[in-house]
Amino acid sequence: MSVDLARETYRGLSPAEFFYRNKEIAGFSNPARALYQTIRELVENALDATELHGILPDIKIFVDVVDPGKNIVKVRVEDNGIGVPKEEVPKVFGMVFYGSKYKIRQSRGVFGLGVKMAVLYAQITTGKPVYVKSSTIDSKEIYEFEVMIDVINNRPIVLSHRSYRKDNQWHGTVVELTIEGNWSYAKKRIEEYIKRTALITPYANIYFKGPDIELAFTRATRRIPKPPREGLPHPKGVDIEMLKQMIAMTEENLSLRDFLIKYFDGVGKISAETFLKWAGFNPEQSIKTLTLEQLDELARKMREYSGWKRPKDISLSPLGEELLRRGIEEVLKPEFIATVTRKPSSYIGNPFVVETAIAWGGKIPPSEKPILYRFANKIPLLYDEGADVTRKIVDSIDWSVYKVKFPAPLLVVVHICSTKIPFKGVGKEAIAEVPELEEEIEAALRECARKLRMYITKKEKELELALKRVTFMKYLPEVASALSYITGKDRAHIERNLIDILEAKLRGS
Amino acid sequence: MSVDLARETYRGLSPAEFFYRNKEIAGFSNPARALYQTIRELVENALDATELHGILPDIKIFVDVVDPGKNIVKVRVEDNGIGVPKEEVPKVFGMVFYGSKYKIRQSRGVFGLGVKMAVLYAQITTGKPVYVKSSTIDSKEIYEFEVMIDVINNRPIVLSHRSYRKDNQWHGTVVELTIEGNWSYAKKRIEEYIKRTALITPYANIYFKGPDIELAFTRATRRIPKPPREGLPHPKGVDIEMLKQMIAMTEENLSLRDFLIKYFDGVGKISAETFLKWAGFNPEQSIKTLTLEQLDELARKMREYSGWKRPKDISLSPLGEELLRRGIEEVLKPEFIATVTRKPSSYIGNPFVVETAIAWGGKIPPSEKPILYRFANKIPLLYDEGADVTRKIVDSIDWSVYKVKFPAPLLVVVHICSTKIPFKGVGKEAIAEVPELEEEIEAALRECARKLRMYITKKEKELELALKRVTFMKYLPEVASALSYITGKDRAHIERNLIDILEAKLRGS
Repeated sequence: MSVDLARETYRGLSPAEFFYRNKEIAGFSNPARALYQTIRELVENALDATELHGILPDIKIFVDVVDPGKNIVKVRVEDNGIGVPKEEVPKVFGMVFYGSKYKIRQSRGVFGLGVKMAVLYAQITTGKPVYVKSSTIDSKEIYEFEVMIDVINNRPIVLSHRSYRKDNQWHGTVVELTIEGNWSYAKKRIEEYIKRTALITPYANIYFKGPDIELAFTRATRRIPKPPREGLPHPKGVDIEMLKQMIAMTEENLSLRDFLIKYFDGVGKISAETFLKWAGFNPEQSIKTLTLEQLDELARKMREYSGWKRPKDISLSPLGEELLRRGIEEVLKPEFIATVTRKPSSYIGNPFVVETAIAWGGKIPPSEKPILYRFANKIPLLYDEGADVTRKIVDSIDWSVYKVKFPAPLLVVVHICSTKIPFKGVGKEAIAEVPELEEEIEAALRECARKLRMYITKKEKELELALKRVTFMKYLPEVASALSYITGKDRAHIERNLIDILEAKLRGS
Repeated sequence: MSVDLARETYRGLSPAEFFYRNKEIAGFSNPARALYQTIRELVENALDATELHGILPDIKIFVDVVDPGKNIVKVRVEDNGIGVPKEEVPKVFGMVFYGSKYKIRQSRGVFGLGVKMAVLYAQITTGKPVYVKSSTIDSKEIYEFEVMIDVINNRPIVLSHRSYRKDNQWHGTVVELTIEGNWSYAKKRIEEYIKRTALITPYANIYFKGPDIELAFTRATRRIPKPPREGLPHPKGVDIEMLKQMIAMTEENLSLRDFLIKYFDGVGKISAETFLKWAGFNPEQSIKTLTLEQLDELARKMREYSGWKRPKDISLSPLGEELLRRGIEEVLKPEFIATVTRKPSSYIGNPFVVETAIAWGGKIPPSEKPILYRFANKIPLLYDEGADVTRKIVDSIDWSVYKVKFPAPLLVVVHICSTKIPFKGVGKEAIAEVPELEEEIEAALRECARKLRMYITKKEKELELALKRVTFMKYLPEVASALSYITGKDRAHIERNLIDILEAKLRGS
């Protein structure tokens, strides 16, 4: 063994360089997938910028193949959202791990990574900056930027910038990217993505124009779910690191009791004192005097304590049974729909709500197992179904119990809303197996499935009746003739009477 | 809509804070999985520190449940590797995205993230720092550190440090972490992980001591695969960003031709000039004068050009058919093994080698589909099999073509070596679908499967013969008696002759 080999060289990477080197883990693995992912990131930001603030979304998406020989594609997404403040534009588009999404609140974006990955990908594959035009509601200007990312230092580079007076009420954001993308390979998935996005946001206008398709989903309702509000951390989800950070950021010298009341979800005077007594802490102790050992003990006890209230769901924004039904009707036009929105639940302090729907018949093609539409915080998930907790639950259900015989025209919709979706990766495609989540998904699905069984039972009966009626009608003339011959009564009169008897009997059975 | 809602607040996160908030995407999702992941990260670093430098690995792993009531577990891993230089210890263990793994070279570690995640997890769940003891080969000291991570700033915090003279030849690293971990839930996976690690590193001594198990794998051979050497980037894998960085880091004012020759894999004078002519560049142009448009064009042409040599495989270190066989024999003791190591191939400039094995019978339990052992750069992959390209290929093969009738005692081993494994996530569990990879995996498996078919055919024939022999022997006494009666010859003599004829015939058939 040679000694020169026996020493390594070391270096650090900025987060931008890390994701530049590992772009496939954020979904940018090839020109088709990258095009899909770019559209996703922009559309999800557009929807967050509108409906998180109670604005009915008006989203336009344009995809143009600029140079077919080189697979160069331009993607443009326009929204009528709250806009990005002028001073924040460079970092929001040009700095990895910077954003407005690091809050306890249900939103599509959570990592502060997606749009930067798209910007990086554009920069890597075509050398082009991102173009951004925006204006906030209270701004008197419209501003435009061209931004790239200094990969080594993870800083934005502003290539150009101009502002001009706003003489109308426009607010929103327009983003344009030129990337290497394979439209023909990505087309089907993108179409599916837009369709499912429309399904889960029936209050949005979504217009998509691609090189050879045009899709327009007009809102089916002007009702919009109540926007989520920012929540406080729940004591069940705490760790030492979090306590350290919170205490460092607290300027006042609070007592332990007041600290718990002020900064945690659902903790009042009585519950704070009851807990602190149980945990062996003095409620009057100043938080600034806690030692590392005490912090460790406090965090552990907070996680262990079973007396906390369940997390509040003010930070969630599920669709609700009615809107979910509208979305499905509008997009899938099935024969039957059952929807269920469960009550809020939680895992390690994170509130979540599961909503499911079962759609049956109509345009749904019969298949060998249930077709599954997965959604997380209103994001359609199209990839990695095999690794997703929902597929596992759907496959574990014995559907014959619910009178489903495959092949069947059965489509299952599962929507999970949470302040923290347990995604398996930063590409946000598969959801991990969290027992609390599994229970809720299964309970919601079974509730829908029972409704389906009732529907199928009813249909079976109707079919049975129809068959009986057909059989009866076939023999009716002969029976009536025979009775008419025997009784000497009018044949038509006997026939009418027999039909009346039959109908009364069928109705009763 | 209220105006105060219509403004977002923005902030940035350090990479340490990002992964602190999203630890599940790096595999730290619950106390069982986190324990598994912690062991993995430490063992993989230990193996990299030894065999990447030609040292026969001697790895010891200790897991102790410190406090069963609180699920507190201590993990200690010791290796005889090259050690971490004293001045690098704080950052290597206390700074996310810092390490020695950012090189074009096959190694288990690639992200510079794993051990820091384990340190973060320890810090979050027990408040305890990581303990590190190390010494490099040329160091005259042994040094010990206790390190934590300043999450907000992504910087190491050294809590304690001491050094003392080394009076022996010891070099290596010892790492100890105290984490919240669930041993009883994780035990089976950890055992499986250690077993498969031993299979893929038959030249290593691996000793594992857990609370209620002890495993010792002694090396089956002292042959170690040739360590990988650091490679140069391949022109097929280039992008503008990379060219910009490389040119910025080049101090000399090179011509385009000399730049290509000096800094890229497999580019000589002739190939550089042929390419530049084809791409429409002047070979004498100074790299410092290239405009952004030219860089874009150059990168694109480099990717498009089909005349490059295939990437060199000096940076790879596959096991080879012989060692793979040894590993499988030692750990699985099957009845039959076929191994194949394919020639190097590449995708977008990244060299890779696929090796596969098929093991049959012996202690392998019969199952309804092939049992799959997946490995990437000698790392066993145990989770997310459903999302892995290998499972897809294995399932797409019609095994009946190879005379396999399920349930069958069939185990398939697939090992992918590359300077860049296309992992789907930073947890390094599933490999993405790369067409070049798929082709090689399938070709390798079919090659093994053909050998298996030959073996099964041979076994079938042997069985057939045995059956024929049994049938013959059953009737032999009667036939011999009859012949003896007819011919008047000795019965025993006739029997012997008949057996000779039979044996000759069976051998010939």
